[in-house]
Amino acid sequence: MRNIKTEKLKLGGLFHPTGNHVASWLHPDTQLDAGSNFRHYVELAHLAEKGKFDLMFLADAAAVRGGDLEALSRWPQYMAYFEPTTLLAALAAVTSHIGLVATATTSYNEPYNIARRYASLDHISGGRAGWNVVTSSNLDESKNFGHEEHLQHGDRYARAKEFASVVRGLWDSWEDDAFVRDREKQRYFEPAKLHVLGHKGTYFSVRGPLNISRPPQGHPVIAQAGSSEPGKELAAETADIVFTAQGDLEGAKNFYSDLKSRMSKFGRDPQSLKIMPGLNPIVGRTEGEAKEKHAYLQSLIHPSVGLELLSNAIGGVDLKGIDIDKPLPTDFLDRDTNTSKSTLEGVMKMAQRDNLTVRQLYERFAGARGQRTLVGTAEQIALDMRHWFESAAVDGFLIQPADLPNGLKDFVHEVVPALQHMGVFRTEYEGTTLRENLDLPRPANQFTAATTNAYRHDQD
Amino acid sequence: MRNIKTEKLKLGGLFHPTGNHVASWLHPDTQLDAGSNFRHYVELAHLAEKGKFDLMFLADAAAVRGGDLEALSRWPQYMAYFEPTTLLAALAAVTSHIGLVATATTSYNEPYNIARRYASLDHISGGRAGWNVVTSSNLDESKNFGHEEHLQHGDRYARAKEFASVVRGLWDSWEDDAFVRDREKQRYFEPAKLHVLGHKGTYFSVRGPLNISRPPQGHPVIAQAGSSEPGKELAAETADIVFTAQGDLEGAKNFYSDLKSRMSKFGRDPQSLKIMPGLNPIVGRTEGEAKEKHAYLQSLIHPSVGLELLSNAIGGVDLKGIDIDKPLPTDFLDRDTNTSKSTLEGVMKMAQRDNLTVRQLYERFAGARGQRTLVGTAEQIALDMRHWFESAAVDGFLIQPADLPNGLKDFVHEVVPALQHMGVFRTEYEGTTLRENLDLPRPANQFTAATTNAYRHDQD
Repeated sequence: MRNIKTEKLKLGGLFHPTGNHVASWLHPDTQLDAGSNFRHYVELAHLAEKGKFDLMFLADAAAVRGGDLEALSRWPQYMAYFEPTTLLAALAAVTSHIGLVATATTSYNEPYNIARRYASLDHISGGRAGWNVVTSSNLDESKNFGHEEHLQHGDRYARAKEFASVVRGLWDSWEDDAFVRDREKQRYFEPAKLHVLGHKGTYFSVRGPLNISRPPQGHPVIAQAGSSEPGKELAAETADIVFTAQGDLEGAKNFYSDLKSRMSKFGRDPQSLKIMPGLNPIVGRTEGEAKEKHAYLQSLIHPSVGLELLSNAIGGVDLKGIDIDKPLPTDFLDRDTNTSKSTLEGVMKMAQRDNLTVRQLYERFAGARGQRTLVGTAEQIALDMRHWFESAAVDGFLIQPADLPNGLKDFVHEVVPALQHMGVFRTEYEGTTLRENLDLPRPANQFTAATTNAYRHDQD
Repeated sequence: MRNIKTEKLKLGGLFHPTGNHVASWLHPDTQLDAGSNFRHYVELAHLAEKGKFDLMFLADAAAVRGGDLEALSRWPQYMAYFEPTTLLAALAAVTSHIGLVATATTSYNEPYNIARRYASLDHISGGRAGWNVVTSSNLDESKNFGHEEHLQHGDRYARAKEFASVVRGLWDSWEDDAFVRDREKQRYFEPAKLHVLGHKGTYFSVRGPLNISRPPQGHPVIAQAGSSEPGKELAAETADIVFTAQGDLEGAKNFYSDLKSRMSKFGRDPQSLKIMPGLNPIVGRTEGEAKEKHAYLQSLIHPSVGLELLSNAIGGVDLKGIDIDKPLPTDFLDRDTNTSKSTLEGVMKMAQRDNLTVRQLYERFAGARGQRTLVGTAEQIALDMRHWFESAAVDGFLIQPADLPNGLKDFVHEVVPALQHMGVFRTEYEGTTLRENLDLPRPANQFTAATTNAYRHDQD
């Protein structure tokens, strides 16, 4: 596998508008209008670039998040924000090194449009674009696209796989040196270096070629986040980066070795896929200060938001009207839910073992929503990160600051220098493209070896 | 109508990569890699902003232009270029006043995605976004989206109309003051000011709401270019700007009064629609120098490109192998074509009247491809523009420089000052948004007066 003496860990930043903590917008120091404040994102991008982050990542959904409107009005995180590809294109113009990765769903887009937008972002940024390939399972999204129900899980993945394959094929429409731009011979491109994809599949029929030259990176970086069985298979076959939620070291090591070991059957080097679990750091000058910071954020969670998120985490059990300063009611296990009994029993067991009130219980779910939180000094956090890295549990981390911009400032100003001092993180960018910095190979053009498939204007 | 004493003309710029002239890339001073050179577009945007242009506009198609590959390789204009919304978002970050208008087709997109992207661009730019609404009639495009044939003309317009109406409805999802962001009351938005569109129509079913706050302009500016009967009706009902090709003053006046007079039946003030015909200026210090510049560009047209474009202009007549330095062959009228006999007879008549060789004839079609070309000194061009403006033939012009960046430099440095000196063009931007500069009203929210339709989370 990798050489931990020479290899460095990779860092990404996931920036929810006011921060990853569900109550971050209530913190007096967060950027209150973050969801429509472009200057806020410029500040974040500049901070992350100062911290030599490989990339910043924007999650996405094509809907206003559904749920209890009373709770949602107190929890703005997924309600109103920039469309990611336009925001990252704008940030490309004011940054020079950081990678720019955006989610776009394969469920409600067309491959030709996605291939163009990410190729365009790659050209604008000089080779720093990435696409997080997702499928949509959200009913709120499906209703914005003429569907009353979303696709079944298997269909979604099959569609996603075909979608991504078409996009990669379109990125290869022009060979890297197709544009000769020879004024003397009056020849702008070499016709033989233009290729028609001519894809006819189950979900898509796309002729091509793409009307933009091959991206500087060959293909923009492909990120994925699926942890299901088909998700892991797809990632092993096609992903350059995997984002994942891993709560403990043993689980992370298992996920890491499981995913990497699947790659050989697709002829891939395990090094060519970077696994970057989410990490929510709360940094203090002392451990006590960090704990206070965290407790303060937790105290800001509105009960209706806490109950909504606890309910979500356990499959939609109705918790309205419950006394939040007492333990979970004993009839809890008998309530109607989509969640398996074993999950509910697990929650009940944890609540009883730790003698938690409902409030204390929802704080465990609501704050970081399943992402691992590390509370401590910069030194403590850096040591923990190094330990995971050296344990072959991760290739890097996706940093999700709890509050923005301050949580990112703390990380960049305190934790990054500690990591650099330990020798596990870069002090200068190694390259100019995202692939170069992530140490990923530049994909070959699928048409280069082929002697057929050259462009003919017979309009097949 | 308007007060020509106080009103100023409007200026837009349409920037094909190397310029509007078909042979511009062969001119030694054009930016040869313009289609993938972001810095080139930054230079153009800064020049246009220096010239106080209202807007820059990017045309678009979702396909590599079809045709004879031998000719196309010598004519790169529609082969490979940036996707417009990402390019304009990037330019928004490095400009402050100029409007940013991009084409997106209603034929191969989803209204929810388009509404988001343009709302996002409007927020990023602080209210400078515009959407040029088009339908796609191009078979090369349809084959990239799973269709073997494009929609019929009537269907395309019906779909476009419904599409644009859904987009406008989605832009109104949140009232302007919906986001109260009240930390004390722990209320981020007012639930009553969030509105569900709930659209169920012929082509689309879109629930909403949109997951981005209302655009700074209320609605980004809507541009259209259709000159057909349904195109003019749709523009009269819904457009803020119309781009059009008008070759002579009488025709332009007729088009102007025709379109403006259609607006009253939709309850619209004729002032609230700006008609901006295309204009291709060739500026010289003397008329002779300008004519030389033009002649040089014309001389660069490769015969295979000239014949391809002449053939396109007259419905696909096969002209291969023709002697370009002789008049059109006499059997010309008998060739197979999709064009009406009267069009062909008109072309033949012109060729005979002016005693044109085939080369001279294709130069009339190929250079500016139907857009009006003005060749002269800055003073001559400015006087002509003022004359059209004062004749109520135009509200402004869409400037399409023949070669870039020099054609734009000439216009900004020479013609703009002349227009300013004549008092028909601004010396400073009047406002900060595109609507303010174009003197267009800010649309009211369609839900504001309504007492029903408030958001309810019953997932109807």
